[in-house]
Amino acid sequence: MPKQVDHEERREAIAQALWRVVDQQGWGRTTMRVVAHEAGVSLGQLQHYFASRREMLTFARELAAEHTSDRVERSVRDLPRPPHPRDALEAALTEMLPLHPDSRATSRLHAAFVLESLHDPQLHEQARAGLQAGRDRVEQIIRSAMADGSIADDRDAAVETDLLLALSGFAPLLDLSVVTEGAARKAIHVHLERLFAVE
Amino acid sequence: MPKQVDHEERREAIAQALWRVVDQQGWGRTTMRVVAHEAGVSLGQLQHYFASRREMLTFARELAAEHTSDRVERSVRDLPRPPHPRDALEAALTEMLPLHPDSRATSRLHAAFVLESLHDPQLHEQARAGLQAGRDRVEQIIRSAMADGSIADDRDAAVETDLLLALSGFAPLLDLSVVTEGAARKAIHVHLERLFAVE
Repeated sequence: MPKQVDHEERREAIAQALWRVVDQQGWGRTTMRVVAHEAGVSLGQLQHYFASRREMLTFARELAAEHTSDRVERSVRDLPRPPHPRDALEAALTEMLPLHPDSRATSRLHAAFVLESLHDPQLHEQARAGLQAGRDRVEQIIRSAMADGSIADDRDAAVETDLLLALSGFAPLLDLSVVTEGAARKAIHVHLERLFAVE
Repeated sequence: MPKQVDHEERREAIAQALWRVVDQQGWGRTTMRVVAHEAGVSLGQLQHYFASRREMLTFARELAAEHTSDRVERSVRDLPRPPHPRDALEAALTEMLPLHPDSRATSRLHAAFVLESLHDPQLHEQARAGLQAGRDRVEQIIRSAMADGSIADDRDAAVETDLLLALSGFAPLLDLSVVTEGAARKAIHVHLERLFAVE
């Protein structure tokens, strides 16, 4: 190994190792030691990047948020231009669900982060701020759809936003095989069709 | 302490100690040692009841399921007789949300159990079976409401059941203060009013 390893390169290798461990074993089993082993660095080298498991969790959450927003962006970009807000919301909601390896990892990491944050005010604020920003974007889409007449103007924008966010409740139902992928996609589609059904 | 401590009494004391620890610190911090200390027994005495942390989790999950079903039953019993299926569903869905100490503990323990079960086939089957039974009861209520005309018969019972279950997605939104209790109750109410709106 060359004496000077590129800092960014190693950081990226550690990020990918962390991701593989979270995906395969869950956050509960993701210790600094396991991640160091997976990344092929010493525990001391890993501690150069993260002083604690908690710092590693914060980093993993940011990574998960980036991955999720990249996936949403890509799937909205694949829609016919300009995308209908209903289709954009459907693409975004579907990308939040654990339907393929990357979204499974991000969804599970999100759930683990929420649980850890219940007993850690600083993590709580990070998790809250991230979700709040997502909620604001969804409400904005709904309000502009109400303004341009694609959602009936007697709907309550805040209630409709909250009902859409609550559809993230499909994540544990999918993870536990209580609801199939097809059933979750269909339910989300039906919900959005009704929301955008102007009489 | 008398030589013969009643087995059931100690089991109950341990169950309550376990519950307090889960509620106050979350499952992530709930070790055998911490529960033994809280229950005022030795680690060896605790191991007489649970051979491992995993067995303790299984017990906690059963306890959570019992608590939840007791709360749902009590809140449905408080409704005018015979209860309207819409009000029964509203009471049941609301009792699943982390809105007071007991339901906060059961809701968080459920989330922790789902995460642990993703990497443990036996826990996965327990979690799946429990949720599947809940889903079946909800679908039965919806099908009989469709049969008696209180839900329109052009609805898809499976889709409506899944959409109701997905409302459990309000749990992390409430825990992270992204949605208020009032907003979650209102959204659930609006969703059910629409489901039972026969034209």
